[in-house]
Amino acid sequence: MGDLLSEARSLDDSDQLSCFRDEFVSIEPDLIYLDGNSLGRLPKRSIEIANDVIARQWGVQLIESWKTWIDLSTTLGDRLSQSVLGAKKGEVVVCDSTTINLYKLALSIIKEQRGDKEARKKIVIEADNFPTDRYIVDSLAQEFGLEVITLPVDDSQTISIDLFEEAFDEDVIFGCFSALSYKSGARIDMAAVNSIAQGVGSRVIWDLSHAGGAVVVDLEGTESQYAIGCTYKYLNAGPGAPAYLYVRSDLIEAMENPIKGWFSQDDQFEMAEKYSPKSGISRFCTGTPNIFGSYLVGAGIDLIAEATIEALEAKGHALGDFFIKGFEVELKDLGFSLASPKDQSLRGSHVSLSHPRARQITSELIDHGVVPDFRTPSLIRFGFAPLYQSFIEISRAIQVIREVTIGMR
Amino acid sequence: MGDLLSEARSLDDSDQLSCFRDEFVSIEPDLIYLDGNSLGRLPKRSIEIANDVIARQWGVQLIESWKTWIDLSTTLGDRLSQSVLGAKKGEVVVCDSTTINLYKLALSIIKEQRGDKEARKKIVIEADNFPTDRYIVDSLAQEFGLEVITLPVDDSQTISIDLFEEAFDEDVIFGCFSALSYKSGARIDMAAVNSIAQGVGSRVIWDLSHAGGAVVVDLEGTESQYAIGCTYKYLNAGPGAPAYLYVRSDLIEAMENPIKGWFSQDDQFEMAEKYSPKSGISRFCTGTPNIFGSYLVGAGIDLIAEATIEALEAKGHALGDFFIKGFEVELKDLGFSLASPKDQSLRGSHVSLSHPRARQITSELIDHGVVPDFRTPSLIRFGFAPLYQSFIEISRAIQVIREVTIGMR
Repeated sequence: MGDLLSEARSLDDSDQLSCFRDEFVSIEPDLIYLDGNSLGRLPKRSIEIANDVIARQWGVQLIESWKTWIDLSTTLGDRLSQSVLGAKKGEVVVCDSTTINLYKLALSIIKEQRGDKEARKKIVIEADNFPTDRYIVDSLAQEFGLEVITLPVDDSQTISIDLFEEAFDEDVIFGCFSALSYKSGARIDMAAVNSIAQGVGSRVIWDLSHAGGAVVVDLEGTESQYAIGCTYKYLNAGPGAPAYLYVRSDLIEAMENPIKGWFSQDDQFEMAEKYSPKSGISRFCTGTPNIFGSYLVGAGIDLIAEATIEALEAKGHALGDFFIKGFEVELKDLGFSLASPKDQSLRGSHVSLSHPRARQITSELIDHGVVPDFRTPSLIRFGFAPLYQSFIEISRAIQVIREVTIGMR
Repeated sequence: MGDLLSEARSLDDSDQLSCFRDEFVSIEPDLIYLDGNSLGRLPKRSIEIANDVIARQWGVQLIESWKTWIDLSTTLGDRLSQSVLGAKKGEVVVCDSTTINLYKLALSIIKEQRGDKEARKKIVIEADNFPTDRYIVDSLAQEFGLEVITLPVDDSQTISIDLFEEAFDEDVIFGCFSALSYKSGARIDMAAVNSIAQGVGSRVIWDLSHAGGAVVVDLEGTESQYAIGCTYKYLNAGPGAPAYLYVRSDLIEAMENPIKGWFSQDDQFEMAEKYSPKSGISRFCTGTPNIFGSYLVGAGIDLIAEATIEALEAKGHALGDFFIKGFEVELKDLGFSLASPKDQSLRGSHVSLSHPRARQITSELIDHGVVPDFRTPSLIRFGFAPLYQSFIEISRAIQVIREVTIGMR
């Protein structure tokens, strides 16, 4: 362990992002929080921002504040595009939840081909899609009599590109994949999969929940068409902050939001009798947006913009590599196996280990001040949020995992 | 004006709820805020609560807090049922927006009769339905080839009960009405309309946005089947706080949430491959809920529970009566007409005046420290939130309205 510790110290010393650790509210000094991939930590500035939104914007300015609030979904979307997602202005909106945003996109795409005699009949997903994505896709498939093809994840936790090639044909409406698996953190080559899908006139909806703020997504460079994602993980916007939705600009006007709420209505406050959608991405808004959560998304975006997403990805990978090194030296002999890709270019910012007693070990770890999370049946996920994680935390975590596991024998 | 002023003083002196005014954060001393029907004011306790949620629950306890947060939608729903809506335990859930909640209920009801040869073909709404409700109903009607019947509002701003009798027949799937009109504040006799609808095997979805927290709704006593509503008006939960959804207990199990997110999944964290809905009202949850907003809903419910909804309704009516008296004495000769029912039992907690120059008058009033709101084309809405409004504010508002209008001549 001595070697790991001194290496951690040296890595922390040369970490250009270490100053960002101080941007977050302190937690208990002995706590090692490795669950930023589930719920990101609280940025200090978010306390001030929340207080301003509540005490001044709501408390004092009251209804007057709607003049600013009314455009938040799109102004935040533009900031997210620029600093986190690599999309263009007017392509992203911040609203609703990931679940609802996926529902809107998937249903809109399915309905676009209605009345078409050559209508496509299949949707492709992967075995590791996040449950809410699977439930939404499955239920729409059932509703419209479509077949769902599920791509298996192989032993290396990735999906062979050949499987995408095989699955996409001219009968596939769209594929829905997590850019980073919530289980293994495995990364899909978005550009390659987009190219395969678009080569047969199909499309892909990307779930960026575990990718946004952790790795360089580059929606434009990868020629992505549709995406959704949440903001409470690496974007540190707090529990239940609003999600985002992306549609490539040239595809927006053909789409119809199936949930036609007043925030998607052109000239909203004219209160027109008939629905007429806004032009542009804000047609995907629905009801009154969550204003507090929106401002906290703004704080999260700013932090990423300041650190730069490129530097964050690099540090996330270094943290993961260091953890895997610790696993190989200290944990491999205790029944753990690596359940994430070893190659950093195939990974996001969390690393999973599997162990037959994963549930119990997770619980013991939490009792000992190390907080990963458990995913059924045998996975422990260790999230390394590059904005606030230190290498020394990882070396200490490795030590605690070893001690706890030995103690349970 | 002298008479009005002294009457206001005397009414304030005998106001049993006047102590609740101090429960709200002070606004500028000269500001008369009459827009609580659009965005309620900030309760002092909400600042502390928000700070606790952010700094302690999120900032320090982090992921551990999900143990409490996970049930918020239903625990809040139960508190709302008991103190505000007159529903039973297990019938209300707090989640999403009013728009999305209406979409879920309406689509679920429409789909329930699918495959039925005798399927009903009509939906009944009223001309004054809030736009988002109309857009949702219209779009679903179009989607499923249904006819929308719109009941006209008569000169007294109400809808004759005869019109409901005429409209509801055995071909009506459901009606969707605002219990209180967003324009006029006119109140519909929910029990009577429920009885008419149910008499022909039909149903009603009530939008309680302007009623919840302002008047006694009594969902159980009125034999209501379905309802939705927002929390940022008389529930004072802040901009974009989550909305609520009610289904009478005996009707829940037959319904299917069309948006099958993971928060509606039985044994959610088992992350099962196949969707299987929760039993009970929480099957209407969708994605990760807005936690900050949820806690602020809790603060709003508590205030209403302390004041009691019966006392609030009585005071709201008294405030409205006093305003109408002021209108008759001071404003009638200046081109204003009453655009709300004069009879308090037919009204909620806001009163509207119409005037040919309503837009300009509203703008002038705001410049002079009186904040109502304008609704196109010629309506000024004056909201009287019984928790924090005083009679003296109303007498001062009447005076300012008179002065401003005379000054514009």
